[in-house]
Amino acid sequence: MSTFGQYFKVTTYGESHGRSVGCIVDNCPPGLQLSEADIQPQMTRRRPGQSALTTPRDEKDRVEIQSGTEDGITLGSPIALRVLNEDQRPKDYGGGGKNIDAFPRPSHADWTYLEKYGVKSSSGGGRSSARETIGRVAAGAIAEKYLRVAHGVEIVAFTSGVGPEHLFPATKTHPNQSANPAFLELIDKITREKVDEFLPVRCPDETVCNSMADLIAQYRDKSDSIGGVVTCVIRNCPSGLGEPCFDKLEATLAHAMMSIPATKGFEIGSGFGGCEMPGSIHNDPFVKAPAVPPAEANGHASEGAAAGRRRPRLTTKTNNSGGVQGGITNGAHIYFNVAFKPPATIGQAQQTVGYDEEAGVLEAKGRHDPCVIPRAVPIVEAMAALVVMDALLAQSARQSARSLLPVLERTVPVSETESKLLKES
Amino acid sequence: MSTFGQYFKVTTYGESHGRSVGCIVDNCPPGLQLSEADIQPQMTRRRPGQSALTTPRDEKDRVEIQSGTEDGITLGSPIALRVLNEDQRPKDYGGGGKNIDAFPRPSHADWTYLEKYGVKSSSGGGRSSARETIGRVAAGAIAEKYLRVAHGVEIVAFTSGVGPEHLFPATKTHPNQSANPAFLELIDKITREKVDEFLPVRCPDETVCNSMADLIAQYRDKSDSIGGVVTCVIRNCPSGLGEPCFDKLEATLAHAMMSIPATKGFEIGSGFGGCEMPGSIHNDPFVKAPAVPPAEANGHASEGAAAGRRRPRLTTKTNNSGGVQGGITNGAHIYFNVAFKPPATIGQAQQTVGYDEEAGVLEAKGRHDPCVIPRAVPIVEAMAALVVMDALLAQSARQSARSLLPVLERTVPVSETESKLLKES
Amino acid sequence: MSTFGQYFKVTTYGESHGRSVGCIVDNCPPGLQLSEADIQPQMTRRRPGQSALTTPRDEKDRVEIQSGTEDGITLGSPIALRVLNEDQRPKDYGGGGKNIDAFPRPSHADWTYLEKYGVKSSSGGGRSSARETIGRVAAGAIAEKYLRVAHGVEIVAFTSGVGPEHLFPATKTHPNQSANPAFLELIDKITREKVDEFLPVRCPDETVCNSMADLIAQYRDKSDSIGGVVTCVIRNCPSGLGEPCFDKLEATLAHAMMSIPATKGFEIGSGFGGCEMPGSIHNDPFVKAPAVPPAEANGHASEGAAAGRRRPRLTTKTNNSGGVQGGITNGAHIYFNVAFKPPATIGQAQQTVGYDEEAGVLEAKGRHDPCVIPRAVPIVEAMAALVVMDALLAQSARQSARSLLPVLERTVPVSETESKLLKES
Amino acid sequence: MSTFGQYFKVTTYGESHGRSVGCIVDNCPPGLQLSEADIQPQMTRRRPGQSALTTPRDEKDRVEIQSGTEDGITLGSPIALRVLNEDQRPKDYGGGGKNIDAFPRPSHADWTYLEKYGVKSSSGGGRSSARETIGRVAAGAIAEKYLRVAHGVEIVAFTSGVGPEHLFPATKTHPNQSANPAFLELIDKITREKVDEFLPVRCPDETVCNSMADLIAQYRDKSDSIGGVVTCVIRNCPSGLGEPCFDKLEATLAHAMMSIPATKGFEIGSGFGGCEMPGSIHNDPFVKAPAVPPAEANGHASEGAAAGRRRPRLTTKTNNSGGVQGGITNGAHIYFNVAFKPPATIGQAQQTVGYDEEAGVLEAKGRHDPCVIPRAVPIVEAMAALVVMDALLAQSARQSARSLLPVLERTVPVSETESKLLKES
Repeated sequence: MSTFGQYFKVTTYGESHGRSVGCIVDNCPPGLQLSEADIQPQMTRRRPGQSALTTPRDEKDRVEIQSGTEDGITLGSPIALRVLNEDQRPKDYGGGGKNIDAFPRPSHADWTYLEKYGVKSSSGGGRSSARETIGRVAAGAIAEKYLRVAHGVEIVAFTSGVGPEHLFPATKTHPNQSANPAFLELIDKITREKVDEFLPVRCPDETVCNSMADLIAQYRDKSDSIGGVVTCVIRNCPSGLGEPCFDKLEATLAHAMMSIPATKGFEIGSGFGGCEMPGSIHNDPFVKAPAVPPAEANGHASEGAAAGRRRPRLTTKTNNSGGVQGGITNGAHIYFNVAFKPPATIGQAQQTVGYDEEAGVLEAKGRHDPCVIPRAVPIVEAMAALVVMDALLAQSARQSARSLLPVLERTVPVSETESKLLKES
Repeated sequence: MSTFGQYFKVTTYGESHGRSVGCIVDNCPPGLQLSEADIQPQMTRRRPGQSALTTPRDEKDRVEIQSGTEDGITLGSPIALRVLNEDQRPKDYGGGGKNIDAFPRPSHADWTYLEKYGVKSSSGGGRSSARETIGRVAAGAIAEKYLRVAHGVEIVAFTSGVGPEHLFPATKTHPNQSANPAFLELIDKITREKVDEFLPVRCPDETVCNSMADLIAQYRDKSDSIGGVVTCVIRNCPSGLGEPCFDKLEATLAHAMMSIPATKGFEIGSGFGGCEMPGSIHNDPFVKAPAVPPAEANGHASEGAAAGRRRPRLTTKTNNSGGVQGGITNGAHIYFNVAFKPPATIGQAQQTVGYDEEAGVLEAKGRHDPCVIPRAVPIVEAMAALVVMDALLAQSARQSARSLLPVLERTVPVSETESKLLKES
Repeated sequence: MSTFGQYFKVTTYGESHGRSVGCIVDNCPPGLQLSEADIQPQMTRRRPGQSALTTPRDEKDRVEIQSGTEDGITLGSPIALRVLNEDQRPKDYGGGGKNIDAFPRPSHADWTYLEKYGVKSSSGGGRSSARETIGRVAAGAIAEKYLRVAHGVEIVAFTSGVGPEHLFPATKTHPNQSANPAFLELIDKITREKVDEFLPVRCPDETVCNSMADLIAQYRDKSDSIGGVVTCVIRNCPSGLGEPCFDKLEATLAHAMMSIPATKGFEIGSGFGGCEMPGSIHNDPFVKAPAVPPAEANGHASEGAAAGRRRPRLTTKTNNSGGVQGGITNGAHIYFNVAFKPPATIGQAQQTVGYDEEAGVLEAKGRHDPCVIPRAVPIVEAMAALVVMDALLAQSARQSARSLLPVLERTVPVSETESKLLKES
Repeated sequence: MSTFGQYFKVTTYGESHGRSVGCIVDNCPPGLQLSEADIQPQMTRRRPGQSALTTPRDEKDRVEIQSGTEDGITLGSPIALRVLNEDQRPKDYGGGGKNIDAFPRPSHADWTYLEKYGVKSSSGGGRSSARETIGRVAAGAIAEKYLRVAHGVEIVAFTSGVGPEHLFPATKTHPNQSANPAFLELIDKITREKVDEFLPVRCPDETVCNSMADLIAQYRDKSDSIGGVVTCVIRNCPSGLGEPCFDKLEATLAHAMMSIPATKGFEIGSGFGGCEMPGSIHNDPFVKAPAVPPAEANGHASEGAAAGRRRPRLTTKTNNSGGVQGGITNGAHIYFNVAFKPPATIGQAQQTVGYDEEAGVLEAKGRHDPCVIPRAVPIVEAMAALVVMDALLAQSARQSARSLLPVLERTVPVSETESKLLKES
């Protein structure tokens, strides 16, 4: 299926050789101020060839709203978004090479698409092109706008690993980033503006960023490629999001992230490192939540937004859980890592076998992107926004339906303290 | 939502305090021989307290088919499955403790469920109980039966890590399991029978298994807990499964695995380690696929099964991709790791805060499972079966619809070799 | 698929020969008081053999809640419902007859099920049995309870036609029921209690009811059967429900009704008769809505329910639309007719052809229900409740999401009056 | 939701004031020859202002394929379709009138959209415009192309009623069209070409067509409007389509038809008239199906299409069922009626109440379509195609999955004849 989400539904379309790529966003709340200007920045961050020094006004990948708004306000009807494919010379896709038609590219989707569909587009993997992500980023920007305006949600991703270079490598004292104060401090503050100060790598630490840039340059010079890790944090996410069984928030996040081309892994909170921690240390004890400063609350209210938003009264002392417990958000920062493999299309000659089952050498022409991590940053942010938005609408329906029921005389659990507390909620 | 799958749909229900737990399996193919005896073995493997030495006839968790079969044959209608809750004393759930009502258990779902629903079951997290997985395992057994009979699919999971003990630790020569010949050999042969020779740990290597058993015993003795990793391989999966955009096979696998309680990470093929490999090494070159031995093909056909199944004529030399390229299976082994955190319920006293926002000490009573990894093995297998089955039906609809169309004079790509090849397909 | 609804999801299971029939209700709002006593009455109304005079305490079709509630309160988790099949002698289903195995019953589902599944249950049509509707009625009772408590919604169906006997036959003055004051008065007041005073026919008019009873008796005596029409009204449905394109409320109502076994037609508001009216008469002009009497409003509020429910300030003078305009409810009564064909299983001998393609005579044994209309009444009510509940949750998510957005400086339309009005909303 | 279908999924977008309208078609089988020329004819039939005499080359509503095909072959990826809105002057929509901003139009969607979304587009009902159906017709044309090429399916709709004028009015001898030989003969032969000989009314009988044309002219001259009925037949639909419970084929057909703007009723086969027939007459006895003439079978096969299509070996003598029994197609003609109300927008002044709750007179300007029936014909055909296509893919997945299972030793039913028969199937 080409649709993501059950409440906030995004359906994308488009290959690189067609007229356009884009999507339809269904069930966006009505009454949201929205124009192309809200969407374009992330589209532009997704494009190749960016750097901190040179940000020429890029006229490409301009998004166009087809429907669903009037006078800059969403109507509640489907929002169709479209980006023209300006250059549709099929021969050039996938890195060209005169023998590209004879060989399925190793670790690319040429072969599996042919197995699946029995036909093959001139661009090889068809929808497996990076261009497919344009619709996701456009839709994600709409979700993000809503989440920011209505709930103050902030989503920021950044490059945390390129090949063996890591922003927070495991150390004796801090074997795991979830226990590393420097990591926790970073995700508490990091902004997209800060991340983009470190273009083109997008790793928000000057030393590490430079090492990564060097590493990427080395692979580029060898006509080779290298993978890496993107880390993402979601702040101010309301508690109570995520469904308890199959659609736990970490499950839909994993689904979303592993649907981005070239991903090989996902971990949330303590992640794989958490397997090595004892429960007594891994568990996040509860602490009383700080009161929300009236100034902040007001500031938000004056944006007409967070009024009535329910704040957790408890929070956790540590956050090995990554903001999600039992599949449901607890109001703490949600953070996760996504692993990307090295790009499959490389300039080096590759010994392989052709569609005719004869061995041969595939030689790609031209320059190829040696590392996709920096460009993956806005895609990870977009998919995170789609997941949270979908979970939010699911929970809104539930809470809103419940709010019309009579207050329970007593709720299910029986201790006195709890009973008292619940009656007040 | 409590439903998994879009074609092969499984809807589960049940908390530990209700009359029963179970599920409805919708869209199971008609004409499959199926009885409780096909389902019970995995139910039993899921239960606690198993060991290789003692396999007493366990009368608990008996699954009962309610509908959808007659005379041991599936009718094509919904199959409802039910397992009674024999013991519904709510006070004992979640590890009891006299103050369990006053404190949300750290890193458990008590608090987030209350945030989500505004009511709280006596068992605390309600559906977050491990008992919820019964319906998944039962449904998975049906999917597995079909996949095995119709396609010869084999799904085997095993314990590959407990705390810092790993079956295939990274070494200088083999930094990554996807490049480790011992690993590749293991996943090529491993069976459930072999895995269960290593009960109760289910790590199929005597030395490592013993170390893991020791480690678990240590944590048990400290009233603490420890996490670990389950590795799973899917063999003989038809090529062409998985959707190219949001529902890539690795994405739905990740969704499935991260929906299992207590998971923190998922990686497929080269996984997180793959980020550190150059593309020139990570890419899996194609080789001509070996011909299927007629004996094997016949053997299968005599089971009335694989007749007409399309075999890839190409395969890959290495398998860093983990059997999936561009989100679509290529016919090679699919293998992946799932990270589980240490169980949140521990016997040790925990300093935390109660529902009344007052600090205090939570003391759980009784014995708790210090490590869930061994019991997670059949759950991982079940979810893998559900993912493959769903993708298979999606692809069946597509292929079947395509097979009725006129053969194309020429297909899209234009090279002569390919054109020739495609016409034959 | 065996699931109905996108937000309030009901999945049913069960044939008459299996252990049980039932359903899983997913996404029921938490905090609703619910026990078997809320569900049983409609189950009992659905059973055969009822009359006003004799209402023996019927011990059959007892519904059992398996999950999703505790202490009589819904938890927000899936509610599984089960009704045992007490008598599973397959030979007796479908009216038996010694040659039932040799002949597909005319106008029954025996033949089409075999075409569809390639296997055939002993009960012939498997899921096409009337017993399949048990799960629907049980689930509908839960939806109804919520709708009544939270919104004061009332759903009442009744028999309006049996064969050529009609409660509101077309006359010169009132060619169409939507223009007939007697009809409009009836749907304004009719209650289930009133309808059940006219058991076993359930047509709330003594004269017509008696004629219908006579007609049914005639067909019964001839071992023949007869069809009829059920009319249903939904009162107090909130405005704004229904989606504007494919899921217009009349479309999902039609889907729901036409999924009930033996239905042949659906019409809403003016229906087929409306085709013959000129637009100038068919259009429903707006009038100012009467103020809600404080007493009623309070009464409702004291049930903790309707507080905050938004009342339309306009209503319509006539109601040819049947409460739905552009697919969306306008707050007026929703009313519709459902046509049921005569039952296919009759006692008369039928000349037909067998599974072996040889002509012959099918003779069914025993007594058969000559008219299903009276028993269809609670099924129509149940399906109506499921449709409204699903649309309500969809709209709740939307409204709740919108309510957190800043108030618009100006809305899209530009007239001064409207602008003023909208700002206040 | 703006999506129709579960397997063949169509998502539409667009209001009349935006840049474009269109849709995304997901899961179209790969390998189908498809270009704009396959889609445009139905788009053109849908446009207003057509007549048999004048068919000027209409340059408007040109559909443009954005994705999903290459070199005129479908790739299996989403097909996006777009039609530009050439004229976006919002003031003119909805029949203009200087006071259109002050009054919600009676029986239009202006008021209910405002209730639903809280914002209002300048075109009033937004998506309720007839322009919304463009995406449906475009998507339906793709489904139709597949159904025709692969299965020889033919779908033809025509005008059968305008106001009180009916093509097959009830008579003493033929109270019901399902029993009228003239009707049955017509639906056996009727083609779109024949229907379009009767433009602009599209009622394929000269006398009745002329009466209808006169009637429409009368209403036009009075600035009034009139409703009517469209009848549709689906020929050569494979047997076995439709799901047995909620998604019976008649239920999804009803859903589809009642989602078309301005519909008030749906009936299939004997319909509402069938309620008045005794079961002994209404039942459709089985007869042996005629052998398929080899010529026809070959002819089809030479189109590379129907090879392997399974033909029912039984058919029915009468067809009161309308081709569907127990919700599943039996291979006979499927036919149904759809009732359309008179258009709500009329030129006459209407006494009503404005957004400000003040009474007043709404006067629409300009010419309005007095009868939508003729233009509804291709929309009904399109929705029918979407329903059949979706059901076909569902059944393809099932049959294809079943075909890989071992042949059953014996199937469920036990009579000897049947058992023998089933083993052969």
